[in-house]
Amino acid sequence: MIDGSILIGQGARRSDASFRAHDPATGAVVGPAFSIAGAQDVADACALAADAAGAFGSLAPAVRADFLEAVAQAIVAIGDILIETAMAETGLPRARLEGERGRTTGQLQLFASVVRRGDWLDATLDRAMPDRVPPRPALRRMNLPLGPVAVFGASNFPLAFSVAGGDTASALAAGCPVVVKGHSAHPGTGELVARAVQAAVAACGLPEGVFSYLPGKSHELGAALVADPRIRAVGFTGSRGGGLHLVDIARQRENPIPVYAEMSSVNPVIILPGALADRGIELAGAFSSSLTLGAGQFCTNPGTILAVDGPALDRFVAAAADALAGVEPATMLSAGIAAAYAEGVAALDGNSAVARASAAGAAGHNRCAPALFDTTAEAYARDASIGDEIFGSAAVVVRCRDLAQLAAVVAGMEGQLTATIHMDDGDLEAARALSPLLADKAGRLLVNGWPTGVEVTHAMVHGGPYPATSDSRSTSVGSLAIARFLRPVCFQNLPEAMLPPALRDANPWGLSRRIDGEWRAPAVAARPDA
Amino acid sequence: MIDGSILIGQGARRSDASFRAHDPATGAVVGPAFSIAGAQDVADACALAADAAGAFGSLAPAVRADFLEAVAQAIVAIGDILIETAMAETGLPRARLEGERGRTTGQLQLFASVVRRGDWLDATLDRAMPDRVPPRPALRRMNLPLGPVAVFGASNFPLAFSVAGGDTASALAAGCPVVVKGHSAHPGTGELVARAVQAAVAACGLPEGVFSYLPGKSHELGAALVADPRIRAVGFTGSRGGGLHLVDIARQRENPIPVYAEMSSVNPVIILPGALADRGIELAGAFSSSLTLGAGQFCTNPGTILAVDGPALDRFVAAAADALAGVEPATMLSAGIAAAYAEGVAALDGNSAVARASAAGAAGHNRCAPALFDTTAEAYARDASIGDEIFGSAAVVVRCRDLAQLAAVVAGMEGQLTATIHMDDGDLEAARALSPLLADKAGRLLVNGWPTGVEVTHAMVHGGPYPATSDSRSTSVGSLAIARFLRPVCFQNLPEAMLPPALRDANPWGLSRRIDGEWRAPAVAARPDA
Repeated sequence: MIDGSILIGQGARRSDASFRAHDPATGAVVGPAFSIAGAQDVADACALAADAAGAFGSLAPAVRADFLEAVAQAIVAIGDILIETAMAETGLPRARLEGERGRTTGQLQLFASVVRRGDWLDATLDRAMPDRVPPRPALRRMNLPLGPVAVFGASNFPLAFSVAGGDTASALAAGCPVVVKGHSAHPGTGELVARAVQAAVAACGLPEGVFSYLPGKSHELGAALVADPRIRAVGFTGSRGGGLHLVDIARQRENPIPVYAEMSSVNPVIILPGALADRGIELAGAFSSSLTLGAGQFCTNPGTILAVDGPALDRFVAAAADALAGVEPATMLSAGIAAAYAEGVAALDGNSAVARASAAGAAGHNRCAPALFDTTAEAYARDASIGDEIFGSAAVVVRCRDLAQLAAVVAGMEGQLTATIHMDDGDLEAARALSPLLADKAGRLLVNGWPTGVEVTHAMVHGGPYPATSDSRSTSVGSLAIARFLRPVCFQNLPEAMLPPALRDANPWGLSRRIDGEWRAPAVAARPDA
Repeated sequence: MIDGSILIGQGARRSDASFRAHDPATGAVVGPAFSIAGAQDVADACALAADAAGAFGSLAPAVRADFLEAVAQAIVAIGDILIETAMAETGLPRARLEGERGRTTGQLQLFASVVRRGDWLDATLDRAMPDRVPPRPALRRMNLPLGPVAVFGASNFPLAFSVAGGDTASALAAGCPVVVKGHSAHPGTGELVARAVQAAVAACGLPEGVFSYLPGKSHELGAALVADPRIRAVGFTGSRGGGLHLVDIARQRENPIPVYAEMSSVNPVIILPGALADRGIELAGAFSSSLTLGAGQFCTNPGTILAVDGPALDRFVAAAADALAGVEPATMLSAGIAAAYAEGVAALDGNSAVARASAAGAAGHNRCAPALFDTTAEAYARDASIGDEIFGSAAVVVRCRDLAQLAAVVAGMEGQLTATIHMDDGDLEAARALSPLLADKAGRLLVNGWPTGVEVTHAMVHGGPYPATSDSRSTSVGSLAIARFLRPVCFQNLPEAMLPPALRDANPWGLSRRIDGEWRAPAVAARPDA
């Protein structure tokens, strides 16, 4: 089932250049030699995607929804080999990967339901005013898909943010063909999922260009994909450097395109004085759990704790250090990630303005020993490197003189995916004062929770101001993610026979629509298969 | 009432550097010396805007709507001096400017009604699932304003796309303070309107930083404004070069921001064979009217006609040339625009692959003599310069061998604001075949109309793929324009007392909201002043 192929439409091909996958726990080679897709593969995949865009983008909602569900079923049908392959390639445990598979199929099903409902079309009709001087023509607007989307698989979610993950699911939901650049750390997992999507495309009788899969290890591959003139948008989750590189390529194209890059966040957690005094020890334990979940390899990992200095904070730090000492170092996703983590921790260890709060020790091959650091607001403000994201279970406690200084630290922070407040009833006034500032900095504001664990729902925002993402107006998790791949088009004075179904007077798709500014349920019964 | 001041918040100041306005019809100086805002003025305006952002952005919808209506009333209250000043500064006739004033106030009133309705908040609630394992917290999402917006007044709509035009109205509607860089071609008009907005801010008791006005002539002023770290988005209408320059500055910021630049479009008009044969002469007359409206100084001016070659097209071209010969050359907006127009026309006159179809002749001081050119699809494909926009009443007829070649010409075109089809019943099949291609190229597709005349409604899209705009996902006209200045934020597990009113269980603003994915009318009566 895994032979290292490049999958272009319904075809499979191999290249001379190849790379190997490794088990990060042992360093052992896993699986066959994987082909590295080249320039011709990129061009062929993009050409097929462009060919498919018109037909795929104009499918009735129910047909595209069925396809998304078929993809979910095909992923389930892969069976346990998917979990075993992902375990070997990523070092992640079975339970996590089984959960992630459920998240991946659940996300496809959520988008299927969203596509069926059709609100994302934003069908909007302004009726003609023939008696006005001059007469007003009928104006109708709906969202159309942007066209072929390039998706970059993320290392840290080999299922939920990789080949058929959130970016792919939302782009397909929008009606955009997808060309995936697979992540080189889990190519076998990627190929299994890609073959499942390929099978679903065939089973649903869709044009083959709806999906292609380009495995590879080189930066050239990703660059060529983003530069291809047929690609109309990009979804990426990864490092700031990687994301900004793609943003630059996209901008230098003859026709610049949007890049949705989710890049960097230290996810500040503010523990207000009441909560710190009342339940600092309990919070320290929960913090340790959140920080070390999945070896800290989450974009929403709580990397910065902000609190007012004092004995209660001393107790919190000590308790957190204790809790972290009890966490067994976990295998990281790849040797490269483990090395980058060790480098980040070593930099803070070598920073005289930062104290090590947790015990240091050998972690073992590619493993992540949790690390907690302790510094002051003054030092944090002076040395921006203290606030740099370290991908893994490392965090910095920033001791503030008072709430005013704490607010100043927040004001000086970069954009974030999340910001969290821990509070008791007595902290309400302080929390209310901070929350507008936090909402301006982050895509998601939490109270009395931990940022890891991103629900896939309608209200979720997994996004945020730069550099958390390259586009604060978007989310990469939740049903709103579909909006990234749509653009509005107005149709003026078109005869019924030329209008897209969503905008016809007869409303054959049974959509809710905005009529003269007011959102209205369908006047006719839904006939979703029309 | 016009003294050439820089208006920062509620203040007025002057600078040593100044410039003069000129009547384009005569070259005569109009009005006083106008101050040129400098770096300190930019910084002061942006600082005030940032100070005002929180309070202004969290106003109840009804309060912000009242403010928009107060701006409209204040513009009306300026009286005829506004029309007279604009006439002198732009050369546009009274009727056009009176109409444009109505459009400007109508646009503010439309946004007031949109703000009141509150759908733009996209209030979305996913209810908690306490019994799920693990429990799901309550998740709520709404749109928040991006923050201070820089607006560049456009030369060609001194009212409707300038100081209190569409960009300003939509940014204010979204809850973003606005700093306007006034256009140097109509500084007196700009100051009058800016003073009206300033008065409305005071009358409504809003923070003064909600609005500032920076007159000037230098590129440095605009560059400094876009580079200011407190500016969060930019609205611009103008040349491709100008727009791309601002895009570059915005990208090079420490925190890159979106630029909504509406730049360049030749607005292809396709006359299908049936329509050409049946009513080519009539269409030629209507085309001449659309091309010369306002001296052709519209972004939606029909600059390219595509049709299948033959005697019917010969008749159309001859009739259009005749009609254009009867149009008196009109004064253009400025000496610079008139010079650029003359240069563009001269380039086509000097292009051996293009024939002049209309009579050439002296136009008079800063006037626009309409110009119609005639070329082939082959020449058009070979020489991209033939397709360059000429701002003014110039158009090129592209003769195609057949409909397949016509479609190929369309496929080769850049992104457009509009695309138009003229058709009869017999052209339906051809029109249906072309329309997906056109919808992929343009923000608005019209049938049997002319692209000039952009209705300000809910369904309007004045936007389109690059280079029509820098962001095809947006419109700068119509109620959807508000979406450009918003970003979604998720609130997880916040107590009712900390939630923004739009997301509280009590729904004090009486909003329609999306509950667990379904859009629902308010459960409680609207209390818009709460």
